[in-house]
Amino acid sequence: MSVIESLSPQALAEACARSMWDEDNATRYLGMKLLAVAPGEATLSMAVTEAMTNGHGTCHGGYIFALADSAFAFACNSYNQRTVAQHCSVTYIAPAFRGDRLTATAREVSRRGRGGIYDIAVTNQEGEQIAEFRGHSRTVKGALLPE
Amino acid sequence: MSVIESLSPQALAEACARSMWDEDNATRYLGMKLLAVAPGEATLSMAVTEAMTNGHGTCHGGYIFALADSAFAFACNSYNQRTVAQHCSVTYIAPAFRGDRLTATAREVSRRGRGGIYDIAVTNQEGEQIAEFRGHSRTVKGALLPE
Amino acid sequence: MSVIESLSPQALAEACARSMWDEDNATRYLGMKLLAVAPGEATLSMAVTEAMTNGHGTCHGGYIFALADSAFAFACNSYNQRTVAQHCSVTYIAPAFRGDRLTATAREVSRRGRGGIYDIAVTNQEGEQIAEFRGHSRTVKGALLPE
Amino acid sequence: MSVIESLSPQALAEACARSMWDEDNATRYLGMKLLAVAPGEATLSMAVTEAMTNGHGTCHGGYIFALADSAFAFACNSYNQRTVAQHCSVTYIAPAFRGDRLTATAREVSRRGRGGIYDIAVTNQEGEQIAEFRGHSRTVKGALLPE
Repeated sequence: MSVIESLSPQALAEACARSMWDEDNATRYLGMKLLAVAPGEATLSMAVTEAMTNGHGTCHGGYIFALADSAFAFACNSYNQRTVAQHCSVTYIAPAFRGDRLTATAREVSRRGRGGIYDIAVTNQEGEQIAEFRGHSRTVKGALLPE
Repeated sequence: MSVIESLSPQALAEACARSMWDEDNATRYLGMKLLAVAPGEATLSMAVTEAMTNGHGTCHGGYIFALADSAFAFACNSYNQRTVAQHCSVTYIAPAFRGDRLTATAREVSRRGRGGIYDIAVTNQEGEQIAEFRGHSRTVKGALLPE
Repeated sequence: MSVIESLSPQALAEACARSMWDEDNATRYLGMKLLAVAPGEATLSMAVTEAMTNGHGTCHGGYIFALADSAFAFACNSYNQRTVAQHCSVTYIAPAFRGDRLTATAREVSRRGRGGIYDIAVTNQEGEQIAEFRGHSRTVKGALLPE
Repeated sequence: MSVIESLSPQALAEACARSMWDEDNATRYLGMKLLAVAPGEATLSMAVTEAMTNGHGTCHGGYIFALADSAFAFACNSYNQRTVAQHCSVTYIAPAFRGDRLTATAREVSRRGRGGIYDIAVTNQEGEQIAEFRGHSRTVKGALLPE
């Protein structure tokens, strides 16, 4: 049995997250923090900076999406099977503002065959929901961790 | 008749785009260029930089979304009625890479009452389609241009 | 205080469901059963008949959608505010077959201002998930129950 | 070269449609008519009957979805590769009423590898748009036509 096969599901999810984090410039560059990861789950946070906002201080939807999309990626890649996003949707519920700290919490809704569905709630520092995101994933060939 | 009421639909769309551009730090900061705007339409481009990619040089989905979302915003705000995104979905068709120049072309599918539907195709410099985005908008109170 | 205002949230949800049921030919005609309703929640079931299937005995997606859509309608109309579907999406997870009894369970994800998000899981008699549905609602003028 | 391989794309699309039609009880049972088919395209119509409506004569969303879903199925199965729906979304634009004749027109937005995107516009007899549907398909093993 390899070292990887001997890992618990939680330890495997954490090892996958470390591997992804190291190679993901974009997530780091946006100042995201990985708060938690578990099989099928991930929580990330990000501060809304001036560069992410328009002249009225409202966060561009692309950055809210990016935070949710990163949480989705960490959640669906927690089984050491390389998994990609196929289709994502986001509903904006309330605006986010410069200085807000947003948290995206991803949970697994369904995983069957190669397909998965993950829901990500984005909230602000008051616990108010900013957006609801649903991601559809598909596993592709390859593992995240070296054999 | 005010100056604004005397504008042609095309001139009004251009005036709205200038107004939005000036106040949209996020779009400018991402290095987007506004190539064209018309009533219900907008075309923007963006280069994929190293900060937008992971260690393998593949663009984070959040940046592809952000480009399409900006094209959506310029298209649905071209009538001088303040209009916001409610719900957006994106399907990833092919990966984008560091150094690619992506173009997002938004067209209006439907506009009725306060609701609108806009489709945005994202292509690379070879004309290959990278993503297909659909945005649902809703008009809110207020105009973009000062009376 | 009117009779309606004196109802508990649960009693109000039940009264709304009765009112909707009586006027909804389509839901009755499809042989649906209303199993439970509560504020923001509803559970309906439906048997897959021969008329709903193709030559291989697989249920047409439209009927799976219709069951989920009815559960969505009962859930979002449980507050005595007339509420309509704006945008719905469905992901097919496993096929349903002639003779299956499908159950759709709707829960509220978000309700803010006039907009709501509801998730509906459709399962078969074995508890296997057949589809996952997400509905976006909007309240319109009017109540369901007579004053 | 087999008989099938000798068919033009248009003749192949028509042969696939005949094969699907014969085995699709559900589509026939709903009274749908197949008006046209071509590679990646299909047009179907359906009359809104009393059984499809609520007490106010408004068509249940499930039947509007079913019509669009059938047009999607005929369009994405026009290449003699068995293809299934994965994820569909629908936006309701205007209500349909008892006695309306609805037409669903499907066109191909993207087809790459095993995945496809199809847009279906549903209009009434006045040409007014009732709904806009987007379907995501995936090819599976097998052909529609016998060798």
